[in-house]
Amino acid sequence: MNIIIPATLNEKKDAMILLDQTLLPVEKKFIEVKELEDTWEAIKKLRVRGAPAIGVAAGFGIYLGVKDSRADNFEDFYREFMEAKKYLASSRPTAVNLFWALDRMENRLLREQERSIEEIKESLLEESERIFKEDQDMCKSISEYGLSLLKPEMGLLTHCNAGGIATSGYGTALGPMYLGHERGYNFKVYADETRPLLQGSRLTAWELNQVGVDVTVICDNMASIVMKEGKIDAILVGCDRVAANGDTANKIGTSGLAILAKEYKIPFYVLGPTSTIDMKARTGKDIDIEERGSKEIYNGFGRQTAPSEVKFYNPAFDVTDHKYITAIVTEKAILRPPFEDNLKKLFE
Amino acid sequence: MNIIIPATLNEKKDAMILLDQTLLPVEKKFIEVKELEDTWEAIKKLRVRGAPAIGVAAGFGIYLGVKDSRADNFEDFYREFMEAKKYLASSRPTAVNLFWALDRMENRLLREQERSIEEIKESLLEESERIFKEDQDMCKSISEYGLSLLKPEMGLLTHCNAGGIATSGYGTALGPMYLGHERGYNFKVYADETRPLLQGSRLTAWELNQVGVDVTVICDNMASIVMKEGKIDAILVGCDRVAANGDTANKIGTSGLAILAKEYKIPFYVLGPTSTIDMKARTGKDIDIEERGSKEIYNGFGRQTAPSEVKFYNPAFDVTDHKYITAIVTEKAILRPPFEDNLKKLFE
Repeated sequence: MNIIIPATLNEKKDAMILLDQTLLPVEKKFIEVKELEDTWEAIKKLRVRGAPAIGVAAGFGIYLGVKDSRADNFEDFYREFMEAKKYLASSRPTAVNLFWALDRMENRLLREQERSIEEIKESLLEESERIFKEDQDMCKSISEYGLSLLKPEMGLLTHCNAGGIATSGYGTALGPMYLGHERGYNFKVYADETRPLLQGSRLTAWELNQVGVDVTVICDNMASIVMKEGKIDAILVGCDRVAANGDTANKIGTSGLAILAKEYKIPFYVLGPTSTIDMKARTGKDIDIEERGSKEIYNGFGRQTAPSEVKFYNPAFDVTDHKYITAIVTEKAILRPPFEDNLKKLFE
Repeated sequence: MNIIIPATLNEKKDAMILLDQTLLPVEKKFIEVKELEDTWEAIKKLRVRGAPAIGVAAGFGIYLGVKDSRADNFEDFYREFMEAKKYLASSRPTAVNLFWALDRMENRLLREQERSIEEIKESLLEESERIFKEDQDMCKSISEYGLSLLKPEMGLLTHCNAGGIATSGYGTALGPMYLGHERGYNFKVYADETRPLLQGSRLTAWELNQVGVDVTVICDNMASIVMKEGKIDAILVGCDRVAANGDTANKIGTSGLAILAKEYKIPFYVLGPTSTIDMKARTGKDIDIEERGSKEIYNGFGRQTAPSEVKFYNPAFDVTDHKYITAIVTEKAILRPPFEDNLKKLFE
């Protein structure tokens, strides 16, 4: 199975190969990025997207941006690095993983400051590859745990895109689907299109189809009928933030799916790295919900679909109450209720 | 309040005034239709839509089509009428109300066959106006019953378009909203956009906004969050067919809303004329669900939003189990559970 990797280094390690996600689902095109300006543009224009993938691209991008530096002493090299860092950080100021990856690269650089410039450059390359590798390992581990909850021939429903192209490989909620596909599980996957931005139909359906997973796109409001018709044996979604009691913020629409799952007695699984668990948020009430502009709803895909003079409400996320969640699957363990106790233990 | 009426006769009664619904929500344009060919085209191209409004337009249309007939004996006039009827019936062969209205016009004609051609023409005019008037009365009655269930300042959620522009005035699910607006109830209405064809954002939001009802468009997957946030006090939807036990077929997505309503303890009302109650369908299982083409999903907005080579599932309706329905509101009465008994009594 040739899973799509959204951001990698080429063999010579002098360029980053990026899947241009702005062209999906119509065109599959990889672009070669060498200059810092091109990395900046790719992040800014969402050619690369998804928190983990942005972090990986930032790591590779800043390495490529300083690897040809002519600085011959640490101070000069560090100044150049910090200029590049500041510049890349300005590409998407709300992307936490962008800053996390750039900080990590800087910390590595500072740890190596007694070494030669060439050695520092090599350790920056190594650090960027490590960010990539750790993300891959995290996805693989989540995928294995997730797959252990599933059986061959199952019908699976997912929402939005918690997929490979948002990470360095298997993704989170889509991970067990890829792994099951490799092992002949023959899943039937249903993908909610996920209004307003349609990540489910544009991205999830596209990437699963690339490797031959059986995928059917439905509109969000068809989730109830596919569950009622017995097409769905489990629901797998990603997460943006998990509170200490298990309440989970994820793409708008997730909470409705979880309630339907309870009614139809279908297990509802949340999959994500432990880094999305925020023990400082006591419950879902401590999680702020981003509200986005109305144009995404009434003018999202070329044609005007509502009168522009009415009101719109466009929350980007909702919070799923922990009581509807069957299990939270991380790279470290599968967590079951009571989530408050079991999440606490995870961090002890 | 100047409610929008989608199909009426002009004052001179020599032309039909039709709202061209294909131009909504961007343009509000009424067209004047005199010739049979233009009525045919308007129904065919969905310029007029909604079962009751199609029936009304067919009644007016066939009257206008034969009113200038030069036939001077019943046989000739009847032959011309039947040609016109057959022609109009071909405009939308799946629209039950189209045939119902044309049959009703023919029956009236046959009842009047001893009279002069001029008198027959007058009775056809009268019959077409009666179809219109009966539809208006039915909507008004549903609206009054529906409004009796609501209180001022309530937040109301609706799905698809069970509105005035599908009928001759107030509509069914939107009727109580119009009536409440006239009486200063100050409702806050939320309209699901209703994928894939977006009748909620294109039509419902447009028509409510025309008379100044406070309306907010949401994507279908935002229904759970608006209920959770306490914005919704009641849900009002139309119906395409109601089975003898109260199971209700309506636009895809309705069943999911009903389950969310139960979970959030919000009353869920179905509004429609008794003509949609089908006592021959014992339960929802006896109702066939139309499946429509995939292009509505992946190419509905002007731009391609999913890879065309994956699978799609596009059921146009779903069945809401009667156990989730608080009341069924008809022009004759408000029906409460047990629906099986109470629907039976309605037809005794």
